[in-house]
Amino acid sequence: MARISLGKALFQPRAVAMIGASDEGRRHHAMAPLYLEKHGYKGRIIPVNPKRKKVYKHKCYASVSDAPGPIDHALVMTPAKTVPGVIRDCAKAGVKVATVFSANFAEADAEGIRLQEEMVEAAAAGGVRIVGPNCMGVYCMDPPAIISPNRIMQIPKIDKGNIGVISQSGSLTGTFVSRGQHRGLAFSKIVSIGNECDVSVPEVGEIMVDDPKTKIILMFLETIRDADGFAAMARRAFAKNKPVVVYKIGRSEAAAEFTASHTGAIAGTDSAVDAFFKQHGVIRVRHFESLFEMTYLALDRKPIKNKNIAVIASTGGGGGMVVDNLGVNGLSPTPLPKEAEQRIFDAGGVVSNGPLIDITLAGAFPDNVKRILREAFAAKNNGAVIMTPGSSAEFNPERTVTPLKEFLGHEKPFGAALIPEAADTARLMSSMKIPAFKSPESCADAMRGFLEWEAPKPLPKKPTVDLKRIARPLNSANNSVLDESQCQRVFRALGIGQAKSAVVASAKEALRKAKSIGFPMVVKVISSDVPHKTEAGGVALGIESRKELEAAVKRIARNVKKFAPKAKIDGFLMQKMEAGLAEVLIGYRVDDIVGPTIVIGTGGILSEIYSDAAVRLAPVNKRTALEMIKEVKGLAPIRGYRGLPKGDLDALAEAVQQLSQLAHLGDAVADAEINPLIVKKKGVVAVDGLIVKNQ
Amino acid sequence: MARISLGKALFQPRAVAMIGASDEGRRHHAMAPLYLEKHGYKGRIIPVNPKRKKVYKHKCYASVSDAPGPIDHALVMTPAKTVPGVIRDCAKAGVKVATVFSANFAEADAEGIRLQEEMVEAAAAGGVRIVGPNCMGVYCMDPPAIISPNRIMQIPKIDKGNIGVISQSGSLTGTFVSRGQHRGLAFSKIVSIGNECDVSVPEVGEIMVDDPKTKIILMFLETIRDADGFAAMARRAFAKNKPVVVYKIGRSEAAAEFTASHTGAIAGTDSAVDAFFKQHGVIRVRHFESLFEMTYLALDRKPIKNKNIAVIASTGGGGGMVVDNLGVNGLSPTPLPKEAEQRIFDAGGVVSNGPLIDITLAGAFPDNVKRILREAFAAKNNGAVIMTPGSSAEFNPERTVTPLKEFLGHEKPFGAALIPEAADTARLMSSMKIPAFKSPESCADAMRGFLEWEAPKPLPKKPTVDLKRIARPLNSANNSVLDESQCQRVFRALGIGQAKSAVVASAKEALRKAKSIGFPMVVKVISSDVPHKTEAGGVALGIESRKELEAAVKRIARNVKKFAPKAKIDGFLMQKMEAGLAEVLIGYRVDDIVGPTIVIGTGGILSEIYSDAAVRLAPVNKRTALEMIKEVKGLAPIRGYRGLPKGDLDALAEAVQQLSQLAHLGDAVADAEINPLIVKKKGVVAVDGLIVKNQ
Repeated sequence: MARISLGKALFQPRAVAMIGASDEGRRHHAMAPLYLEKHGYKGRIIPVNPKRKKVYKHKCYASVSDAPGPIDHALVMTPAKTVPGVIRDCAKAGVKVATVFSANFAEADAEGIRLQEEMVEAAAAGGVRIVGPNCMGVYCMDPPAIISPNRIMQIPKIDKGNIGVISQSGSLTGTFVSRGQHRGLAFSKIVSIGNECDVSVPEVGEIMVDDPKTKIILMFLETIRDADGFAAMARRAFAKNKPVVVYKIGRSEAAAEFTASHTGAIAGTDSAVDAFFKQHGVIRVRHFESLFEMTYLALDRKPIKNKNIAVIASTGGGGGMVVDNLGVNGLSPTPLPKEAEQRIFDAGGVVSNGPLIDITLAGAFPDNVKRILREAFAAKNNGAVIMTPGSSAEFNPERTVTPLKEFLGHEKPFGAALIPEAADTARLMSSMKIPAFKSPESCADAMRGFLEWEAPKPLPKKPTVDLKRIARPLNSANNSVLDESQCQRVFRALGIGQAKSAVVASAKEALRKAKSIGFPMVVKVISSDVPHKTEAGGVALGIESRKELEAAVKRIARNVKKFAPKAKIDGFLMQKMEAGLAEVLIGYRVDDIVGPTIVIGTGGILSEIYSDAAVRLAPVNKRTALEMIKEVKGLAPIRGYRGLPKGDLDALAEAVQQLSQLAHLGDAVADAEINPLIVKKKGVVAVDGLIVKNQ
Repeated sequence: MARISLGKALFQPRAVAMIGASDEGRRHHAMAPLYLEKHGYKGRIIPVNPKRKKVYKHKCYASVSDAPGPIDHALVMTPAKTVPGVIRDCAKAGVKVATVFSANFAEADAEGIRLQEEMVEAAAAGGVRIVGPNCMGVYCMDPPAIISPNRIMQIPKIDKGNIGVISQSGSLTGTFVSRGQHRGLAFSKIVSIGNECDVSVPEVGEIMVDDPKTKIILMFLETIRDADGFAAMARRAFAKNKPVVVYKIGRSEAAAEFTASHTGAIAGTDSAVDAFFKQHGVIRVRHFESLFEMTYLALDRKPIKNKNIAVIASTGGGGGMVVDNLGVNGLSPTPLPKEAEQRIFDAGGVVSNGPLIDITLAGAFPDNVKRILREAFAAKNNGAVIMTPGSSAEFNPERTVTPLKEFLGHEKPFGAALIPEAADTARLMSSMKIPAFKSPESCADAMRGFLEWEAPKPLPKKPTVDLKRIARPLNSANNSVLDESQCQRVFRALGIGQAKSAVVASAKEALRKAKSIGFPMVVKVISSDVPHKTEAGGVALGIESRKELEAAVKRIARNVKKFAPKAKIDGFLMQKMEAGLAEVLIGYRVDDIVGPTIVIGTGGILSEIYSDAAVRLAPVNKRTALEMIKEVKGLAPIRGYRGLPKGDLDALAEAVQQLSQLAHLGDAVADAEINPLIVKKKGVVAVDGLIVKNQ
């Protein structure tokens, strides 16, 4: 179905069938028809229930296929096992979209999965699109079509507005209405997407991008099921000036997931999702309230470059909380410029200028407030302005809002952090499209989300390496985990410099080849059965002589045999021991959700312990790689911290770019990691690596 | 003045003088008498203003000393420069406490500092106690005495309750009333403490501890001015079962402060404040809303041991947010035990059991909800329970609260995270003393604050070392920064093992003493003018031979001369180069606010970069030191992470305990640091250290 006709069937249906409706009791099936009517739906309401002749005042049909058409939309509320049949009836009746409220499908058990598949097949065969199952419905505010049994619809009136909402939680659609209306925010369309078996988040997003009544799209997500579709939708939304703002759970699971490759351990899925949002111009908030507060912060705006914030307060304590929380979020509350401060004094004004620009009690007269605000908006040293009104916001909304009116439409984003409860002021501000932050914490989070927002960036399309040369060793490997020498061939094909080395079968051979490598030397076991060599006693460092070399090879063989008696030893890698300024980890990983990613972190054990890494979608160009290097705290020493010698960041960025080229191979490689990559004053050298093919 | 009579004068004054009052206009001086009367004060109201005969219906006096006594309390609202005189008048009139609203004292400028001193002297001479200046007044709810010009008092009625509040921000006292009443929380007494020139936070706290109407004390702090007094008050409050809950700003300043000693850089003042609160049984929250939410979470409770949380939800999305945020806060959402799950199924119930215990739509019937809650409260694998109701909380407060009623008084702390706005439900819950969390983020923060709460612990009183032996080298040093050999004497006296070393004046002498130290060796410059030796090129590592030794000493001399031409070189320290399993930093620092602290972190540059350290008040015993070692992420490798060899944690804890003994010297030492302390399989060795005496 074309996007436009799906949109019409979803939001402006000519008739809505309510399958399973009744007028007995107060349960969902009895409430849905009431809500649809109460909130002003003008089309036909068609209850379907073989046990009834009438539902409320509406004639009731035994099957939707008995009812007079055209019926664009059906709300399905019957038990899961009946739904495939109901969908077949919908097909017969020419229903375009069925919103399936019924639960116990794929989210429940094996039988549910089977039922969902059967339903999807029936829908596809019959040309019916499905929203859900296990969803709370579809709400369109203008013209009204509230197709849902959600109890929030007991609300006397649902306001019309410009905010579109897509939620993977059904119950939260009610919360959007509840918290939104309380703040004076109003919605255009809200969709509970449920199990997303057919109609998807990006598909509904695309409809909202095209909807002239929707100006911003808020989302609650638990996962991303169609990353490519989501990316395309987000990019188009950005191009059409409709910010996409997401609250996504999953921030705390990252640390719990461990994989054979350390990359997973330090990057985690959540940081990959962050990278995905960043790449595609999506704003992510971490506070639920910030999702609402982002509306008028981002609406009609673009990402900005100057990340400093002027915080002006008439409550020192409240302003102090805002400043502190901005700092905790890594943002910079910025004083007025000295000249601006002087101008205020010269005009007889009062200000206590610092990270908090404090109006003070003595300065709380309208002219002074106006002057301070004007200076803050005019100042070149900040990119955004936050006002923090005190107790007056509780009883005198006008007094809070009046000084801000002058700046409506100003290019700098601005808002007010409300310190008292001040619900009326919040609503008045919403009516003027000024964001009202309800806590210092959500304020700081919203500002962080906004200031981290970037325009979508395309992924580099052209490989910078010869893909065939990479594919060859990959294809020739029989194991999914490549051995050391296979890894070396791949890294060589990627153009990444490696420590001088040789593979030997015995201590004897090692002695023969010692001269070509040179001391000091490292020896490691080669065995795809032993991914963590150190734990197995499979590594010897700092070998300085032929005698030590011989002993080391023998000792390693013994250790590994003891640690993993069944492991096959494929040989021993002798390697020149490299020293440099830092040990770095670079990793490539195909994330389950967002696809190929590239990560850089500090090498060694600390990389895992501190989760200190920068992640991007792969491939990356060198510029992005340099940006990533700047984000890793633990790389400060090689960036010139405290006058320490700088590492070759350029060569490091190149290595990151080179490893990220694996993304051009599709999903051939699941995981690839170099750890450590030694960063020297000049150049970088890979010392150890791991590559896991996709099975 | 005894505590009891100060409390009476503050909160139950027989008469209140309002100095500077008027009945013209709407400014502060005109509002204060109205608020006092409106909210039901039963004593005499005595306006003082030489320009008026009457203020509203009250006879007005030219000076408070003309007015008929007894007058217990005066609210001073006249310009700063008049206040010392006013206080003298108060003394004459026998006023016991003057609450000074007037600003422009120590917070403003030099003249303000002088005026504040003059005022304090006048007060002390005349036996008047002062609250403020620059404060918003004193509010007692029962019997009512609202002595304040704060506009929040326009509120129709101020409820009586059991929450005491002390705030270092005046405007926030209004916010407490506003946000509190909105949630159905009510207060016993609120004090805006202002510049705290006389009556202090702990002094008011002590009064609240003794006040039968106050059951919990909430505080908004910007600093701690009397740490000893605060500690004593907090301990007494804990003993009397009155939790002290603090929101303190200053979390983001830590990173901005750098001192000559690295300890400051990694520990920061804020972590010292955290250590202080922890030591003295104070709960600290990080979200402003959590401060309110902590009331009924902590009221009548003690710290608990089982930190796992059962999260039960009838909204999957809402519950997911709560679970995710708990995880982000390092807490463990915990499923029901398997047997409990089975019992629910056996009884025909429905539950989706996991980190979120999901009731699901199918299970949303009263018996099932009750059964799940009973199992969660009975389960031994959790210590606390959170309920997360969905849309029903919006319109049906009873339905949310009814299932929870059964557990009132249960030993496990519990509450409900409200996902919709649900203001009525929040108020109903407050009336039942069940905490209502208004966002998933504040819920998680409140739970973190509560679960981190510990009973106050005494600081060890008896030194474990001979204090005289430590004092000797300290006293003999002329510089505030001790040189290397002076430091060594102190560390030796503390019992901390050090690398074998010798101080030499020249390369020649170095060669003579080389044998007694042994290779490999380190050489460092000794100069109190060069605190950061590495940056000055004053360190040579890995010296393996006599030849290298000679060259190194000469090179260091040249480097330092170039780096700091005026620096006095006192010699060169030759030291055995020690290798171990980890490099650790241990530091002692007298924090400006809370006094002596001890810190442990990873050694080297990363210690600063990651701010990964554990801080406690000093001195500590070995048990606390072991606890600290566990808190430092970067020490995971020597705790046995991934099968790595364990370091001698016992010796490390001893070193921490030993260094912390410096606290027994009073404030003789400002800063002392060992970095690195090498942790071996057996024992620890100090390699480099720094001691700064207090000037």
